[in-house]
Amino acid sequence: MFQSKLFTKTQKEPPKDEAAINAQYLTRGGFIYKNSAGVYSFLPLGFRVIQKIAAIIREEMNAIGGQEILMPALVEKKYLDATGRWDVDVGFEVSGKKDKSADFVLGWTHEEVLTAIAGKYISSYKDLPFAAYQIQTKFRNEPRAKSGLLRGREFMMKDLYSFHADESGLNRYYEQVRAAYLKIFERVGLETVYTVAAGGDFTAENTHEFQVLSPVGEDTIFVCAKRDYAENKEISKLKSGDNCPSCGGKIEEQKSIEVANIFPLGTKYSQAFNLQYSKKSGEKADVAMGSYGIGLGRVMGTIVEVFHDEAGIIWPESVAPFQVHLLELGASGQKIYDALLKAGIEVLYDDRDESAGAKFADADLMGIPYRAVISAKTGDKIELKRRGEEKTELVSLKELVLESSSKSKAPNSK
Amino acid sequence: MFQSKLFTKTQKEPPKDEAAINAQYLTRGGFIYKNSAGVYSFLPLGFRVIQKIAAIIREEMNAIGGQEILMPALVEKKYLDATGRWDVDVGFEVSGKKDKSADFVLGWTHEEVLTAIAGKYISSYKDLPFAAYQIQTKFRNEPRAKSGLLRGREFMMKDLYSFHADESGLNRYYEQVRAAYLKIFERVGLETVYTVAAGGDFTAENTHEFQVLSPVGEDTIFVCAKRDYAENKEISKLKSGDNCPSCGGKIEEQKSIEVANIFPLGTKYSQAFNLQYSKKSGEKADVAMGSYGIGLGRVMGTIVEVFHDEAGIIWPESVAPFQVHLLELGASGQKIYDALLKAGIEVLYDDRDESAGAKFADADLMGIPYRAVISAKTGDKIELKRRGEEKTELVSLKELVLESSSKSKAPNSK
Repeated sequence: MFQSKLFTKTQKEPPKDEAAINAQYLTRGGFIYKNSAGVYSFLPLGFRVIQKIAAIIREEMNAIGGQEILMPALVEKKYLDATGRWDVDVGFEVSGKKDKSADFVLGWTHEEVLTAIAGKYISSYKDLPFAAYQIQTKFRNEPRAKSGLLRGREFMMKDLYSFHADESGLNRYYEQVRAAYLKIFERVGLETVYTVAAGGDFTAENTHEFQVLSPVGEDTIFVCAKRDYAENKEISKLKSGDNCPSCGGKIEEQKSIEVANIFPLGTKYSQAFNLQYSKKSGEKADVAMGSYGIGLGRVMGTIVEVFHDEAGIIWPESVAPFQVHLLELGASGQKIYDALLKAGIEVLYDDRDESAGAKFADADLMGIPYRAVISAKTGDKIELKRRGEEKTELVSLKELVLESSSKSKAPNSK
Repeated sequence: MFQSKLFTKTQKEPPKDEAAINAQYLTRGGFIYKNSAGVYSFLPLGFRVIQKIAAIIREEMNAIGGQEILMPALVEKKYLDATGRWDVDVGFEVSGKKDKSADFVLGWTHEEVLTAIAGKYISSYKDLPFAAYQIQTKFRNEPRAKSGLLRGREFMMKDLYSFHADESGLNRYYEQVRAAYLKIFERVGLETVYTVAAGGDFTAENTHEFQVLSPVGEDTIFVCAKRDYAENKEISKLKSGDNCPSCGGKIEEQKSIEVANIFPLGTKYSQAFNLQYSKKSGEKADVAMGSYGIGLGRVMGTIVEVFHDEAGIIWPESVAPFQVHLLELGASGQKIYDALLKAGIEVLYDDRDESAGAKFADADLMGIPYRAVISAKTGDKIELKRRGEEKTELVSLKELVLESSSKSKAPNSK
C-alpha cells in the first residue's frame, strides 16, 4: 500500500487522555482511534493486525473441529433470566427510544444463547460431541476502562463452546483447547502462563487463564520459577517464597495480563435450559459443556505492551500489518515495491515527500518488521534493517524477498 | 465437511413464526436461527454464505481504493447531537444496569463517527480524496421485523464513506461506487435496478437505491421496461403507463427489495463537525462526502427469495456454502471426498446413515450447486446433478472436478 494514500497519519505526542503504553503507541501510529472511554475504532493499520490475529485463531479453532457461527449482540431477557444473569453489573441494557422498557442486554458472553440453539439440534448421543465458535463483538459496562485495548467496554472476542455426553468427554476436549490456545499464543509471539482461577459469573468450578507476565497487568498471580504452575491470587493460598506444588520451585508473585480463559461449565447451563440427550440405553442425561474465550483486542494490546521500545512498536511478523516498510529517500522505490508485491510480500511503501528523519521515526513507531530503504546512496542495493535491531545491511532485491518472506508465512502455511 | 459432524440438522416443516420464504428455507436448512424478532444467528452453513458475500464485497471495495476499518457499535450521544440524529426512532438506547441515563445509541449508521475520526487526519487538500469502509453490525429498532433477513433489528452491513475536496470529486467517485455495486450484485447473482430515491434521515439530496424486483419486496418503484430507469414511489410523480423520461419505454409499477443504497451527502456532515481543509490557495473549504451501504444479510435473504423452488434453495455458485454436495448411498464416498478436497473444491459430504430419500430432500433444501451421488449402481462413476436442473449424468471424478470448479472460482480469481 502507498503510505501517501493511507488516510491516517502518525502523531508525535502521546494522546493526553491515554495512560497505557498500548493505547499511546497504537494511537500515535494511527492503528486505533478512541471514540469514547473503552470504545475504539480500528483504523486501516489496526484492522490489518486484528485480521491477522483472527486468522490465526480461526485456523487453530478449525483444527480442533470448531464450527464457525455468528450470534447476535442483542440478547433477550428470556435467555439470561434462565440462569439469573440478567442483572449482572457488566451488562449494558438496550431499550427503544419511545418504549423504555429494557428487553435486551448487549451480549457479554453467549453461553445461554448457544445452549438454547443447541437444544434445537441435540436429542441423541449421536449428536455429541460438537463445538461451535464465533469471532464477535462483546460489550461490558466496565467502570475502569483506562488500559487502552486491555479493558474495553466494546471488544472483539473469540468464544468457543463445546457440548459433550459426559465430563470425561469435556475434560478431553478441554485439554485439546488448552493445546490449541498454547499454539495460538506461540504463533502471535506471546509467552503465556496457564493459571488456575475462579469461575466468576460463569461457573462454581475452578477455571483456567492464560496470563502474560507484565508489570502493567491488572491481575496478580503466584507462579513458580519454571512457569509451569500458577494460581490467580483471587483463589490462591500460596505466597511468595512458597514451594511450587507441581515442581517444588520457588513461588513468586507477579503482575500479569489475562489474554484468555477457559471454563469447564459442567451441566450448569444445560440444566438451566433443560438440554438433555438420550443415551444408547434410552436414559436421558444432561449435556456437559465448556466455554473458551480469547479477547482479540486484548491480545493486540498485550503484544504492544510486550513488544515495544522507546521509539515505538515492534510487531511479531505473524501479526504485523505489513511485512516490509519500504522507504524511498530521494530515489524511487516503485520497482522494488512492484517486485515485492509480485513475490506476495505485504508492503507499506512510504512514497511521501517527507524528510529521512520523519520517515525513519514513523517506521520505528509503526513497527513493521523489515525496514527497506532506497536512496541515491544504495544504488542497486537496498538498505535493510530489522525493527528492534541496530544492524543495517545492503542486500539485493532477491535477498530482501528471501529474508522478508522467510518467517512471514501466511497464517495457513505454518 | 462431514455432514454427520455438522451440529445443525434440517427440519421438514417450516417454522410457525416465519412468514417469509427466506426465513423459512434458511431456518429449515439450518442456515440461521431466530433468537428474537428480527435477530438471527448465522449457523455454520449460513455463516459460510455470509463470508462468501463479504469476500466479494471486500474485493470490490478494495478495488476502488476503500480502506477497511472497524468502528464501534456504541455511538456516544455527542456524535449524534452534532447532527440532530440522537432522537431518531430507529435508534436503540444503551444504558448501564445501575446508571440508567442513556449515553450511547447502537450505531445504525456511522457518518458522524467517521466524520469525527476524519477530522483528526484531514487538514490539507493533499489529504483528499479517500474512502474507508467497514463490514460491521448495525442495529435498528424496527417495529415490523417480519421478513426474515430482509428487515432485521440487528444486521451486518458494509458501509463505505468517501471524502472529497469538492462535489465534482464526489460525483466521480459516486459513479465508481455505482459501478462497483453493479459488479458485486452481478457476482452474487442478483439483477438490480438503479433507482432514484429520497434521502431519509441522511440527506436532503436525492439518493440512489439498488432494487431487486420481487413480489415480496417492501418498496414500490416505477421502472421502465428496459430497467434502465427507475424512481422510488416515495419521491416519484410517475405512474404506470407513463413514458420513461430516459428511454421513452412504458413505466410499470413494481414491488422490489432494496439491497443497497448510496447517498451524495455533500457537506452536511462536514459542516456539522467543522471538517474543513486548506486549498492550495490557503483558503478553507468544507469536505464533500458520500456514504454507501449494502446489507449483507439482506443480500443473502434476497438471493433465497429469488433463487428457490418448492424443494428448497438454489444457491448461485459464488455464494454457495459448498460447491459439491457428495451423497453416499450404500457405497463409501470417502475416496471421492478426499480427491475433491485435494482439488480445492468445497464439499459437504453426506456420510450419514440416512435413506436415499432423506438425503435427496436435504440436498434440495440446502441448495448446494452440484449434487454428486455415489452408490452401488454408479460403479466407478459419479451421478452428477445440478441443483435446479432435472438432468443427471454419470461422470468420472476428473469430469466432476472440472465441472464443479469451472464456475466456483474463489472470490479473488474472478
